[in-house]
Amino acid sequence: MKLRCPICGKTYDEPVQRCECGEPVEFEAFKAEPYLGKTVWERFWEFWPVEPAMELSLGEGDTPLVKSKLGKELGVRLYLKNETVNPTWSFKDRGTFLAVSYAARAGYKAIGTVSTGNMAASVAAYAARAGLKAKILVSESTSEEKLKAVSVYGADVIRVRGDYGRLYFESLKLGEKLGIYFINSDNPFRVEGYKGIAFEIAEELTPDYVLIPTSSGGLFRGIAKGLIELKESGLIEELPTLVAVQAEGCSPICRAFKEGRERIERFENPKTVAKAIANPYPPSGNAVLKLLREFGWKCTSVSDEEILEAQGELAKEGLFVQPASATGIAALKKLMERGETEEGAKVVSILTGSGLKTLHTVQTRGIKEYPPEKLGEVTI
Amino acid sequence: MKLRCPICGKTYDEPVQRCECGEPVEFEAFKAEPYLGKTVWERFWEFWPVEPAMELSLGEGDTPLVKSKLGKELGVRLYLKNETVNPTWSFKDRGTFLAVSYAARAGYKAIGTVSTGNMAASVAAYAARAGLKAKILVSESTSEEKLKAVSVYGADVIRVRGDYGRLYFESLKLGEKLGIYFINSDNPFRVEGYKGIAFEIAEELTPDYVLIPTSSGGLFRGIAKGLIELKESGLIEELPTLVAVQAEGCSPICRAFKEGRERIERFENPKTVAKAIANPYPPSGNAVLKLLREFGWKCTSVSDEEILEAQGELAKEGLFVQPASATGIAALKKLMERGETEEGAKVVSILTGSGLKTLHTVQTRGIKEYPPEKLGEVTI
Repeated sequence: MKLRCPICGKTYDEPVQRCECGEPVEFEAFKAEPYLGKTVWERFWEFWPVEPAMELSLGEGDTPLVKSKLGKELGVRLYLKNETVNPTWSFKDRGTFLAVSYAARAGYKAIGTVSTGNMAASVAAYAARAGLKAKILVSESTSEEKLKAVSVYGADVIRVRGDYGRLYFESLKLGEKLGIYFINSDNPFRVEGYKGIAFEIAEELTPDYVLIPTSSGGLFRGIAKGLIELKESGLIEELPTLVAVQAEGCSPICRAFKEGRERIERFENPKTVAKAIANPYPPSGNAVLKLLREFGWKCTSVSDEEILEAQGELAKEGLFVQPASATGIAALKKLMERGETEEGAKVVSILTGSGLKTLHTVQTRGIKEYPPEKLGEVTI
Repeated sequence: MKLRCPICGKTYDEPVQRCECGEPVEFEAFKAEPYLGKTVWERFWEFWPVEPAMELSLGEGDTPLVKSKLGKELGVRLYLKNETVNPTWSFKDRGTFLAVSYAARAGYKAIGTVSTGNMAASVAAYAARAGLKAKILVSESTSEEKLKAVSVYGADVIRVRGDYGRLYFESLKLGEKLGIYFINSDNPFRVEGYKGIAFEIAEELTPDYVLIPTSSGGLFRGIAKGLIELKESGLIEELPTLVAVQAEGCSPICRAFKEGRERIERFENPKTVAKAIANPYPPSGNAVLKLLREFGWKCTSVSDEEILEAQGELAKEGLFVQPASATGIAALKKLMERGETEEGAKVVSILTGSGLKTLHTVQTRGIKEYPPEKLGEVTI
């Protein structure tokens, strides 16, 4: 088991959380062949850095790839990878499961994370499943609704007053001191778990573009690594163009990419309706930037208005997602307008989490009132 | 395509909504063999009364069967069928998909339902997917939160002031007049869609007991019919014992069963935290009663306290469900206490819908506050 820093190149024989240089680490690329199997974990058994603890699985992964009607309007063949039907209703479960597999085998008695949303619920759920304690660090501004969906799993929720931004790094220190395995946004096992999205897509089709809502960069790195491993294993012939999608109100990676910088800078005063991807200083930002450059990939940012419009359009074909999940469709429209995506291209957009988690962003519409005796006046 | 009334025996050659005697109708039993295939629709292709319109599928069905740790404590082998990972996060999607397949093929331009919760969202979503209009009749007391999760799909939501109980039958009249296909709780195609739950369970194991949260009776009838068809097709050797589970505060079927009556009576002043199964006059109540008698099956009711305790226990193994979905576990404990279920039995409990839909029933617990500089004081 060897890990490598994608930025400075230093290698590690132990599963460290991050490189000494401050950047994330990643497992060296796996080259292998798939098996037959019911779950993505079994089919790609040789591609994981730790044996998936199937007894801890809640059925994450193997999500539907739905052909979208929106593609026709836009002139592409569009497919939606629906990650909202994971056990805690977001893609996070794939990464959490693999990281918990490691933590349980390594003998940890507790796991933790720094999050206020999807990842908090996911880590709390898998800790419960594995019989481990969970320590979830959240900012003091986290809403009561979000806390409910985390504390229900029996986790200890630790509300931290003050600078929330520092928590990612402080949690790793705390974890080392107390023997808590922190599974943060770009933990190396978590990132490996996201490769399953790439594997499942490749089992069904060979996309030209994959649109990925991007916050910390963990999901982007995982999908990229999965595709690269498939190519190096001779299982796909070409890599698709990956598009990192951010919200305009918090787009540190796109900004650095556009300005030709090698390092991201903190995005001051982030403000977007897509809270799930509003990380102003993404811990894998530099690693994503490097991937974008190396492979000639893209970074696109979209406005809140465009995001909410895309959220509505997805609901109009039966898929109710949180705003962050709609950014891919908003970005696709931009790419088509600018002629950066060719007509007829095969495009996959990742729907990261359920709209039920962000009901407050939705307006009630189309409500009519009738007394029962007037029901006959309803028109089609 | 022949339908039959399970109560009076009258048959129909057209897919009517209900029998002239007022009871539900059902398709005659299918006898066939399964194929290989990725989805339950494809594998059991010959078991559906209408060809599933796969282009309208959102990926419903093929849900995980999770081995539960609770079983060990209770002395049984317990498996949880997690229907919360369907496209609108409840089992309703299976039935809606099949009924929409029919409605679209039959040329309907609009579909509808009478519901305030899971079914409303499901019908609205599949109408959107199929490009059909949706008319959702809800009671005036329906909360704004629930309306949001329905109207987001673009459905017309019709709030009816006054007696909500009559709406089931009035909606069918309205539908006939306006050409709207109403897919209510025990619509014959909807019930057929639920057979997939039975098929998928049988693909993995041969249960001794299946615990089914029961409201209108549509889900219970669907699972029962699926199992009966498997037996008649020679695919399973014995039928498991099915247990209809109701909330004590609204248990018209269990009450009639206990009192040895053949007909249910309206349950006055229903009151339970398990809103999703709080139908005081279930339209398939008599049909369920007949099945319970005919096969020597069981009906068990559980208190709100027992339901909420079970909901908490399920969350403690990583599965956050709505109160109605926890009734199966609450019932299992009762059956074990009473010695009505033998040690070591294989038991499946159906988890019908996501806990995110009923966040208001959950208490926030375990929240601690720290300033960042005191984080070091956190203990494991």
